[in-house]
Amino acid sequence: MQEILGGVCAPKGFKASGIACGIKKNKQSDVALLVSEMPAAAAGIFTTNKVQAAPVLVSKQRLQKGTARAIIVNSGNANACVGPDGMLSAEKMAAAAAKMLGIDEDSVLIASTGVIGVPLPVEKIESGLAQNQGFLSASGGNEAARAIMTTDTFAKEVAVEFELAGVSVRIGGMAKGSGMIHPNMATMLGFLTSDVTIDQQLLHKALQRAGELSFNRITVDGDTSTNDSLFILANGKAGNKKIATVDKDYQIFETALIHVCTGLAKMMARDGEGATKFIEIKVSGAVSEVAAVQAGKSVANSNLVKTAMFGEDANWGRILAAVGYSGIDFDPQTTDVYLGGLLVCKGGTAVNFDETKAKQILSAKDILITICLSDKSQYEATVWTCDLSYDYVKINGSYRS
Amino acid sequence: MQEILGGVCAPKGFKASGIACGIKKNKQSDVALLVSEMPAAAAGIFTTNKVQAAPVLVSKQRLQKGTARAIIVNSGNANACVGPDGMLSAEKMAAAAAKMLGIDEDSVLIASTGVIGVPLPVEKIESGLAQNQGFLSASGGNEAARAIMTTDTFAKEVAVEFELAGVSVRIGGMAKGSGMIHPNMATMLGFLTSDVTIDQQLLHKALQRAGELSFNRITVDGDTSTNDSLFILANGKAGNKKIATVDKDYQIFETALIHVCTGLAKMMARDGEGATKFIEIKVSGAVSEVAAVQAGKSVANSNLVKTAMFGEDANWGRILAAVGYSGIDFDPQTTDVYLGGLLVCKGGTAVNFDETKAKQILSAKDILITICLSDKSQYEATVWTCDLSYDYVKINGSYRS
Repeated sequence: MQEILGGVCAPKGFKASGIACGIKKNKQSDVALLVSEMPAAAAGIFTTNKVQAAPVLVSKQRLQKGTARAIIVNSGNANACVGPDGMLSAEKMAAAAAKMLGIDEDSVLIASTGVIGVPLPVEKIESGLAQNQGFLSASGGNEAARAIMTTDTFAKEVAVEFELAGVSVRIGGMAKGSGMIHPNMATMLGFLTSDVTIDQQLLHKALQRAGELSFNRITVDGDTSTNDSLFILANGKAGNKKIATVDKDYQIFETALIHVCTGLAKMMARDGEGATKFIEIKVSGAVSEVAAVQAGKSVANSNLVKTAMFGEDANWGRILAAVGYSGIDFDPQTTDVYLGGLLVCKGGTAVNFDETKAKQILSAKDILITICLSDKSQYEATVWTCDLSYDYVKINGSYRS
Repeated sequence: MQEILGGVCAPKGFKASGIACGIKKNKQSDVALLVSEMPAAAAGIFTTNKVQAAPVLVSKQRLQKGTARAIIVNSGNANACVGPDGMLSAEKMAAAAAKMLGIDEDSVLIASTGVIGVPLPVEKIESGLAQNQGFLSASGGNEAARAIMTTDTFAKEVAVEFELAGVSVRIGGMAKGSGMIHPNMATMLGFLTSDVTIDQQLLHKALQRAGELSFNRITVDGDTSTNDSLFILANGKAGNKKIATVDKDYQIFETALIHVCTGLAKMMARDGEGATKFIEIKVSGAVSEVAAVQAGKSVANSNLVKTAMFGEDANWGRILAAVGYSGIDFDPQTTDVYLGGLLVCKGGTAVNFDETKAKQILSAKDILITICLSDKSQYEATVWTCDLSYDYVKINGSYRS
């Protein structure tokens, strides 16, 4: 497997682009369109928030048939909490894309991100698409990735190439999200493409596992949006023998998909609102993978840990305390904590560590926190987050206005 | 019932004081002692964190017999995560108080708050007490309340007087905590005194209910410390007929205790680290009290809601989203949200509200957020928190050093 360029357009048979329809100010691009030449197996996973935006509801319903051709995404407006009109706007947005592409309306999936509680100006998307016929391109991945950005400071794209029984197969992806929030709270969105030939249920299975190990293991502020969505389209154009069971080919595909999703997820954590540090938290020796994730997320979501990292303060007590209130079953007396390679807490007790060395480790942009709960249990997990800075408060203190 | 002065010394038969033993820098007072003239019924509730400090473990064990005479508290050092020496230090600290007071060691309860992972210099407490014989006073409540402070910006005391069948009874209390954290993460500590005559099990029952409705309903940053403790001593000196069943007298006592605890808890939220706003969140129409609390705490812990309040931004979408991911069962389509008296979201949908009026409401120091989930369910709860400001990041970014 090797990383390649091209984002969502890296796999065969996909085109994409991004245009400015006037939803965002200053002529920034705000609508992305992603299309497969042929019908593709399709799967999606969505926010668990009880409050779900119209595009989530519409896309979920459309994914029931397991195939799709295109995805249209707008930024600048979440089309959430606007009453029954939201569903109508979501459908109109898809219809406009279908019309331009000459495909069925219900083969178009939808995502939105941006301010909530404000009606989506869907007529701007309709006229924008009408004025931009033929704007799609096989090299438009980056334009699409830029059109879905909100507070993101950089476009997030990953693509890989690998072989299945001698046949070259590709997966591409793009994502947005930096705080899962702005403007108003917004959203993590991820879009994956592949030219693999695969059974739709296995595609869904691989997406769930990859999502679990990547997007579900990052946290910037613990808030979950009304719009979070992750889609995959697999159009089969690579020509590999169809993956129809959980065999070796499936494992290779899943591993590649996890690589793409993890890459995108880590970019999101790195681009967390106001972030000055990227923090990787490894938890080992847990009684289950679920427990390892729960402990890691408790540490990742602790404002006290996040501000300590911002302040480059080797405050391991906050790390241990966050594991302590995570709700998992563990023994503090067998728990060790490392900052980078430096042991700072052994068996739940302070270690007389080198403060200069600790300061040096914490002054780096990337910080690794390792928490070994026990040498008796074998489960582990890694989660990613960023620090909590003055800029996070600044960015989120005055967003809607 | 009326509020009175005196804090923990307001009830009959209690003395207290605070002295500087040199644990904190700059000769700030750092040891508080609270004593009842006679053995008192005693109860306590403690942190649910799996990592528990030595004073918590010792006090829990001593409370099993249901009576106590005194409580010694130090600030500036949490006596947590220091290995087996921590237990020894906790016991020595109690022994020093017992010796000075001429009472049994195991009738002395203990609490500590401050930096963790650093051995408690218990010899400073021992010599401090030896040099300050006779420093206790029936008007020393405020001195004690100041000696337990860490990052608190003001001492927190409440006391009330009420009648049980014509007999005047008092409850006093003091607390510390502002972020439940500093320095290192530290702690919420609460100490209650009463001259009521009451069965120990009923005292414990009332303490649990009052703690649940007050200290368990505030959150500054969601972090739970290794040292959180709430104690009550009831010495019977008021001479009321002993409360031995859940009767009218019990209800009057419990109501008064809730009043004292709620008063102290609200002071803590108001004094949250870096706080510029005090936020009260009322959730009604929930399917249970537990659900109402869960929804309220989800909103109270949301960094997005807290930064919006700091920025005086009427960002109700973040409030609705936080209820949405709280995990409770509710219907967004019947949910209304108010800021102060202003309806900003009706049935999960945006309302065209007066932005000037909203700005005016949010510019106040005290902000009320009301969330009505349904008019079909009757359970409700109130939680309290504060906003998330630049100063929170500043205070917590550079604490240990």
